[in-house]
Amino acid sequence: MNIILKTCQISVLMLLVTMLHAQTDLSRYIDPFIGTEGGGNIFPGACVPLGMVKVGPDCGQKDRNAGWGNAGNIHGFSHVHGSGLGGGSKYGNVLFAPIVGNIQLQDYSSPRRNEKASLGLYEVELERYRTSVRLTALSKSAMHEYTFPAGNESKIMVDLGSFLITSMNIEKQAFVGSEVRILSDTEIEGYTRVRGGWNEGDAYTVYFHAVFDTPAADFGTWKGGKIMTGVKEQFDSGEKTGAYFSYNTSENQKIKVKVGISYLGTVKAKVNAGEIKSWNFDDVRKECADTWNKLLNKIQVQGDEVKKKMFYTALYHCYMQPTDKTGENSKWLSDQPYYDDFFAIWDTFRATHPLYTILTPSVQVRVLQSLLDIYKHEGYMPDARSGDDSGRVQGGTNCDILFADAFVKNLEGIDYELALESMLKNAEVPPGGNEQKVGRGGIPDYNTKGYVSTKYERSGSRTMEYPNCDYAIVTVASGLNKPDIAEKYLKRSKNWQNLWNPNIESLGFKGFIWPRREDGSWLNESEFSVFKSGTWPDVFYETYPWEISFYALHDVPKLVELCGGKDRFIERLNTFFSYEHEGWNQKNFMGLYQISNEPGFFVPCLYNYVGRPDKTAEVVRRLLREKFNDTRSGIPGNDDSGSMSAWYVFHSLGFFPNAGQDIYLISSPVFEEATLLLEGGKKFVVKAKNANEQNIYIQSAKLNGKALNEGFIRHQDIMNGGVLEFVMGSKPSQWARSTIY
Amino acid sequence: MNIILKTCQISVLMLLVTMLHAQTDLSRYIDPFIGTEGGGNIFPGACVPLGMVKVGPDCGQKDRNAGWGNAGNIHGFSHVHGSGLGGGSKYGNVLFAPIVGNIQLQDYSSPRRNEKASLGLYEVELERYRTSVRLTALSKSAMHEYTFPAGNESKIMVDLGSFLITSMNIEKQAFVGSEVRILSDTEIEGYTRVRGGWNEGDAYTVYFHAVFDTPAADFGTWKGGKIMTGVKEQFDSGEKTGAYFSYNTSENQKIKVKVGISYLGTVKAKVNAGEIKSWNFDDVRKECADTWNKLLNKIQVQGDEVKKKMFYTALYHCYMQPTDKTGENSKWLSDQPYYDDFFAIWDTFRATHPLYTILTPSVQVRVLQSLLDIYKHEGYMPDARSGDDSGRVQGGTNCDILFADAFVKNLEGIDYELALESMLKNAEVPPGGNEQKVGRGGIPDYNTKGYVSTKYERSGSRTMEYPNCDYAIVTVASGLNKPDIAEKYLKRSKNWQNLWNPNIESLGFKGFIWPRREDGSWLNESEFSVFKSGTWPDVFYETYPWEISFYALHDVPKLVELCGGKDRFIERLNTFFSYEHEGWNQKNFMGLYQISNEPGFFVPCLYNYVGRPDKTAEVVRRLLREKFNDTRSGIPGNDDSGSMSAWYVFHSLGFFPNAGQDIYLISSPVFEEATLLLEGGKKFVVKAKNANEQNIYIQSAKLNGKALNEGFIRHQDIMNGGVLEFVMGSKPSQWARSTIY
Repeated sequence: MNIILKTCQISVLMLLVTMLHAQTDLSRYIDPFIGTEGGGNIFPGACVPLGMVKVGPDCGQKDRNAGWGNAGNIHGFSHVHGSGLGGGSKYGNVLFAPIVGNIQLQDYSSPRRNEKASLGLYEVELERYRTSVRLTALSKSAMHEYTFPAGNESKIMVDLGSFLITSMNIEKQAFVGSEVRILSDTEIEGYTRVRGGWNEGDAYTVYFHAVFDTPAADFGTWKGGKIMTGVKEQFDSGEKTGAYFSYNTSENQKIKVKVGISYLGTVKAKVNAGEIKSWNFDDVRKECADTWNKLLNKIQVQGDEVKKKMFYTALYHCYMQPTDKTGENSKWLSDQPYYDDFFAIWDTFRATHPLYTILTPSVQVRVLQSLLDIYKHEGYMPDARSGDDSGRVQGGTNCDILFADAFVKNLEGIDYELALESMLKNAEVPPGGNEQKVGRGGIPDYNTKGYVSTKYERSGSRTMEYPNCDYAIVTVASGLNKPDIAEKYLKRSKNWQNLWNPNIESLGFKGFIWPRREDGSWLNESEFSVFKSGTWPDVFYETYPWEISFYALHDVPKLVELCGGKDRFIERLNTFFSYEHEGWNQKNFMGLYQISNEPGFFVPCLYNYVGRPDKTAEVVRRLLREKFNDTRSGIPGNDDSGSMSAWYVFHSLGFFPNAGQDIYLISSPVFEEATLLLEGGKKFVVKAKNANEQNIYIQSAKLNGKALNEGFIRHQDIMNGGVLEFVMGSKPSQWARSTIY
Repeated sequence: MNIILKTCQISVLMLLVTMLHAQTDLSRYIDPFIGTEGGGNIFPGACVPLGMVKVGPDCGQKDRNAGWGNAGNIHGFSHVHGSGLGGGSKYGNVLFAPIVGNIQLQDYSSPRRNEKASLGLYEVELERYRTSVRLTALSKSAMHEYTFPAGNESKIMVDLGSFLITSMNIEKQAFVGSEVRILSDTEIEGYTRVRGGWNEGDAYTVYFHAVFDTPAADFGTWKGGKIMTGVKEQFDSGEKTGAYFSYNTSENQKIKVKVGISYLGTVKAKVNAGEIKSWNFDDVRKECADTWNKLLNKIQVQGDEVKKKMFYTALYHCYMQPTDKTGENSKWLSDQPYYDDFFAIWDTFRATHPLYTILTPSVQVRVLQSLLDIYKHEGYMPDARSGDDSGRVQGGTNCDILFADAFVKNLEGIDYELALESMLKNAEVPPGGNEQKVGRGGIPDYNTKGYVSTKYERSGSRTMEYPNCDYAIVTVASGLNKPDIAEKYLKRSKNWQNLWNPNIESLGFKGFIWPRREDGSWLNESEFSVFKSGTWPDVFYETYPWEISFYALHDVPKLVELCGGKDRFIERLNTFFSYEHEGWNQKNFMGLYQISNEPGFFVPCLYNYVGRPDKTAEVVRRLLREKFNDTRSGIPGNDDSGSMSAWYVFHSLGFFPNAGQDIYLISSPVFEEATLLLEGGKKFVVKAKNANEQNIYIQSAKLNGKALNEGFIRHQDIMNGGVLEFVMGSKPSQWARSTIY
């Protein structure tokens, strides 16, 4: 047997293994209802990975970003939603509803019964109408299957005036217009146009084309609350329009409809409806589930069923957004991919996108290409974006970090020169009146004083986040051999130190990040507190001094020094994760640590830097155990477009990225074995001998058979394929006790 | 006869007079070709006043903003155009063409013959196809009448991939997408989506619906250059689409088509096509002409036929833009009017809008309401806008001046508090990265140093224009009883003085506006020149130090003082208007004065301030005589959305506004009698006894029978109705020799 034959055999073997993996149906591990309640805001309807269409029910006050809510009636089933989002609701467009009897436009909602969801399928019964519903989706289309009682008053409504709302005075969606046209007894099309929502975005238009499998007996349209039987079309006069088809149905008669959605036009929507080749609902649902299975199978884990359910459902959450709208960009024509629904990169740059970089680097490249294309056409990369409009910026310009991350991880196919240009624009050009839209607000301060003064909104968050973005510039500029730029921004990347107030004391620790006025003076302690958190336009966005004082992820040695050295730093971390603060909202907290918001995402891994991965393991495993579960409230706070879920996935695997840097900090693997099937065919296996809920401490580690004595790995350690082996135990060990820096 | 009866009789008499006036057909005085050549860029096609549809031919390289050009073939007839515009071409959407034979998609253009235009009518013959064309338009629709030869290869093409382009590398329109659908043998609809153009605007979508009076024998569509016979629709794949209808025609058979245009959707476009009630082309054309006649009759002049032709055609130009798109705003829903196509307010605030304020104050109020509505929804009022997107700013934020003008002229129905808020935003909030889009670029300098330094683009123009805008804030703030604001901005309104360099000498005069560096130092004379003009991003936009040194229209006494007093100021003006500068482009110049660009618009009237209205008369009459005529090159440079034409109209009447202030400077009336029929029924008559081309000097003046001894009138002098009487003579007189300030 010669060497070539051997290689062939190995290849064939690998192929077989891959195929074997690919055949696994992981549907049973996906519960779309995990995280739908308790503030997780997960969308429980049907969609494919990064699908443009997310079809699901709009419930109650229609004030939930996912459309779905556990309380209130169901209004109907609309086609565009986000998952894991807070703030003013966006989308909820083109709503279909199967009803019986007269149309009560002012309230046609119904109580529900037997609501269920599984991979690629949402089902429910509408009590009021004695109808039942099954929904599934492909990328730009949905299939609805409605089951009616016997009678001649069965109807399918299409409401183009319905969309999600909010009770707040800001971030409201507002109706702009709609049109509808019945083309035949089985075809209808039109659009709905809405503006606003969480990102306070420009108007966006959702076009649709629907084809029914059953000819209607009668039809009609409405406008401004007036129903017009037999009238085929309604033009856009700024009043809400809709249409209905009537049927004479026998008991349990099923009527199916394929709905194509487009952001370009109705004829494109018709083409998109054509994605669905079959009229067999289960075929379509299977196609949806298969797409997911193909993705989910990229990680194979061995462990108990509950953990697998939590793990795969978390992985599922990571790929619900952004939305691949390539070929659906109404703003410009381009040969580049186009993604929308970044809610927000501030959330997802930390774990979700690094996960893409490992599992689906080809997708991550496309996302980055699309961000650069947005920069080219609009002048700024977005930090958040939906409905084809950028906004809102929460802190830094975190695209910067995505590109640094891609650069150090050797992602190919990206114009890094252009990326650097756009990063420099972020750093240098103030974004103008609306500082929540794009870019870095407050940089006239930051770039001269070295910090953003309290004159500007979010001054604290900005001063803490911009340095990490500056460090991303250093990374890319160095790599592109531009030492002058690198040097300049390396200096700026230290700017976070300018908010370090050495005189602030709390819980026995001295020195905290603290807001600073335009004249350089600190706010008085009577004016502020180390526990004071906020949102727009407060000093700290979704964080507070105790927490954000750990946010120097590119400058850890200096942070440790300012905290009084390694031992004091460990003590500070210990206090952070264990302090019982009276009156503090404990739900999503552990000590002073909030898992529900992103600024603290990395803090557990700071223990690794000072040689205490055992403490990382303790904290992380306690968080995984106490803050996540497999119920509807199983996510600690808003999933933030899969951010919480990505945190869960990484730490379950036993490592976590420091985004923008080529380093993954080792925490504590949950599964005895986890295999990552990488693009190109390589495999990366994480083995954790004896791993269980007691044996959370790493006793020893090997990478490809060689001892690994430090608490981190690098990207190529994963991407080259190989085996990372741990021996786990129930007691802290002396493993990886040296500092990383 | 009692007093009531008397009043009634007078009213009836006035009504009769009004009706009599309204009945006058002024069509013979409108030559749509005046100003189409020689850089005037007038659109010669058909439209109604402020109409959304401007239907006309797209010619040659399709690189002219008006679509029409004197050279090259005609490609077809599209529905959206601007008039009097320079820079990168915008629009030229939804192109129809009557052809015979096979469709040559790569070039279906034809030489033309017998091209003619009159009020509401454009006609031409296409030699290549032996077809002829008549076009007319209503507000949101157009009617085409095509005459075919006998044959079975007659076709009407609808090209959704056609639009105007430019040879420049900036300001290019770019295709985004299109769809087309043939609904029946007489109906077609679709859209074309384009971005870019002069304002570098966001994508805009022009929807259309067309109805033919003759059923097609055959039809087809195309995409990406491939013609598909019998195929009814093409979806948006980013390739160019179009469609054709075929006919078997007898000799001279006419086929008519009504085309509705909408920015909302195709069903709305269908409704807009329904504006056209008749299939009789001449009925529709008459309706178009009647709309114009109603407007044009607001001024009745007595004088020679050529002057009347020039005058009424100029008045016609003043009402071609902005575009009333109320009910067609795809960006938000509002009860406010919506106007688009401000190209740019920088051009039109000086004369065009003041003319509206006199002749059609109800329209001016609607325009201002729409500007405030844009502010409310987008954060800034536009200085320029087209395709529903703001940009470009040429100098100041000239909306400010429109609102000051409205305020001092008592326009009602405007939220002046909101206006002031938006003016203050202009003044205080830097607009961000794209300083050509909205707001005031460079204000970090201006608001601290008192001038915009050369660090910023257009630093000179900005420093000279912002003070006039600041003065507008003073005006509105004072009127709203906000003395603190008024005082602050009164100080800033002096900022233009900070660019007055007393050491620059030219042609015997000392002291000129001069660019200044960030550190306060002046540019060296070796680096700059008093004759140096520019465009974006140069120091002076469409002006140069010699001219802009007169631009202190709210601070004339200080200007006179800096120039060395009244006599030296007059001498400086004399030199400005008479100097023969070697190598200077003389076409649109008189001395150093350029009539073709707006910064010098007001300079002739500065003579009035120093008691020399005879010099104003001399200069203005020479400009009217030498720079304007009734040929195709009859406008001195770009009409700039009717700006040149408004200058012509005002000075023909004998007065000119200082926009933002309640003052009209008297120049030299051209007509022996001109009657303004004001909204509400009052009349303002300007009589000029003995007026002719020699008798250009005012010898004496009376307002409503009382001697008028100063060289200006106020707005209420006009709006109250009355008679302004002049006695004209061929020699300068001593009339109005005192200074105005």
